[in-house]
Amino acid sequence: MKLATLRLPGRTAAARLDGDEFVETQATDVGALLADADWAQAAAAANGPRHAAATADLAPVVPHPSKIICVGLNYRTHILEMGRDLPEYPTLFAKFTDTLTGPNDPVEVPAEDPEVDWEAELVVVIGKEGRRIDETEALGHIAGYTVANDISMRGWQFRTKEWLQGKAWQASTPLGPVLATPDELGRSARVSTTVNGHVMQDATIGDLVFGPAALVAYVSTMTVLRPGDLILTGTTGGVGRARKPPVYLRPGDEVITAVGGIGELRTPMVAG
Amino acid sequence: MKLATLRLPGRTAAARLDGDEFVETQATDVGALLADADWAQAAAAANGPRHAAATADLAPVVPHPSKIICVGLNYRTHILEMGRDLPEYPTLFAKFTDTLTGPNDPVEVPAEDPEVDWEAELVVVIGKEGRRIDETEALGHIAGYTVANDISMRGWQFRTKEWLQGKAWQASTPLGPVLATPDELGRSARVSTTVNGHVMQDATIGDLVFGPAALVAYVSTMTVLRPGDLILTGTTGGVGRARKPPVYLRPGDEVITAVGGIGELRTPMVAG
Repeated sequence: MKLATLRLPGRTAAARLDGDEFVETQATDVGALLADADWAQAAAAANGPRHAAATADLAPVVPHPSKIICVGLNYRTHILEMGRDLPEYPTLFAKFTDTLTGPNDPVEVPAEDPEVDWEAELVVVIGKEGRRIDETEALGHIAGYTVANDISMRGWQFRTKEWLQGKAWQASTPLGPVLATPDELGRSARVSTTVNGHVMQDATIGDLVFGPAALVAYVSTMTVLRPGDLILTGTTGGVGRARKPPVYLRPGDEVITAVGGIGELRTPMVAG
Repeated sequence: MKLATLRLPGRTAAARLDGDEFVETQATDVGALLADADWAQAAAAANGPRHAAATADLAPVVPHPSKIICVGLNYRTHILEMGRDLPEYPTLFAKFTDTLTGPNDPVEVPAEDPEVDWEAELVVVIGKEGRRIDETEALGHIAGYTVANDISMRGWQFRTKEWLQGKAWQASTPLGPVLATPDELGRSARVSTTVNGHVMQDATIGDLVFGPAALVAYVSTMTVLRPGDLILTGTTGGVGRARKPPVYLRPGDEVITAVGGIGELRTPMVAG
């Protein structure tokens, strides 16, 4: 099952993908839907107004999560090729709700930082509240998966040792297009980025050092995880900053970020 | 004027301090109050039910901010005494709403990290939405000030270069007791921490490298600031980790964190 948050005149609605149409549920967005313990049955049974999927205007699939947690370097092959040791603990940082934007929305290259880079990521969406969740129980707390492009303003990111200021730029993280339930995602699903049609990143989620269950267990040691909370699982090699010479996104570029089995984000870059 | 968020049976309420009583406004908390552009008049005119201040149960003064931004090392004297250069840019990191707790609530020493430390901080509370706010206009976006103890789990904080996992522990950051409007705060107000009656931190906010107006301007370059958003302005010397030998908080300790003109947080430490 795949679920999206539709932007409709004066409101939003959570909807189930049914062939080439979205069918509205009674929830105002996918985050509100997940707050209902019976969300899966409610979504499967929904039979509200229908909208053509091809022309639907999509919001960030969870528009107002209570927390957005991001993981740093987390792809084994990429870490080893950089000559580093595998990490003992995941590196975590945060984003704000205001950082999110829709899966097809344009993203600004800000006047203050021209070093704008891409990072394709698999995202865990929490479906059930928990704290200190055991790793063996963690998959039961995951509603499904979505895609993010953790677009990063590298100049600001590396102004100080803490990355937040390059990672939380207003409306810079496309999220979506859908929440796919776990049955939709293969163990070797590919995570990829293309820029203007050129493949820049391509890896398999089987290469994650800390997978979804390990991350849910680790993060929930520190703080409660609530329905709709997001864990961005990190990116692989091929980002623009690591290229020689570095490649950054410019107004007019189109970035496509995808995870097999879920869908893709199409991001036109525009002047800030 | 001083405003608090009261915990009442089955609800919360924003209230104005009037002598030794809190007087309820019509808003459910101080964050909701600040969303009204006329919040200052509404609060000044409020004449709802009254509650004795001495026995009031206080929530975090803004319980659900859209963002909580924290500043790293930001006290001039402390930076220079450590032999470091003054920073060119503020170091920023984040907390979650779930990280906050009330100004008199107990805080747990978690089983997973015994290296629990204090950090007394002046907090800026945003009163008016803005993006790319000029520093000369920034004070007009500040509703007032409050106090936080940025209690830090040092073991987890330094597991990786990004501090989040030691800074966003569940219910670990007491916030309050009140929002004090800017007229209540002197330019040389003192920020202090005592542990079991021993003074551990004592500085003046005049020593801040990046003051409130500079921080509002800087952060709003990156992302919109909304009413109720919080900027924790950093701490001074005297934290437990920097002592020789290091001193950490234990169950049974009482930490008092204060800013002159605003008030104090009384935090009993308990076993996790």
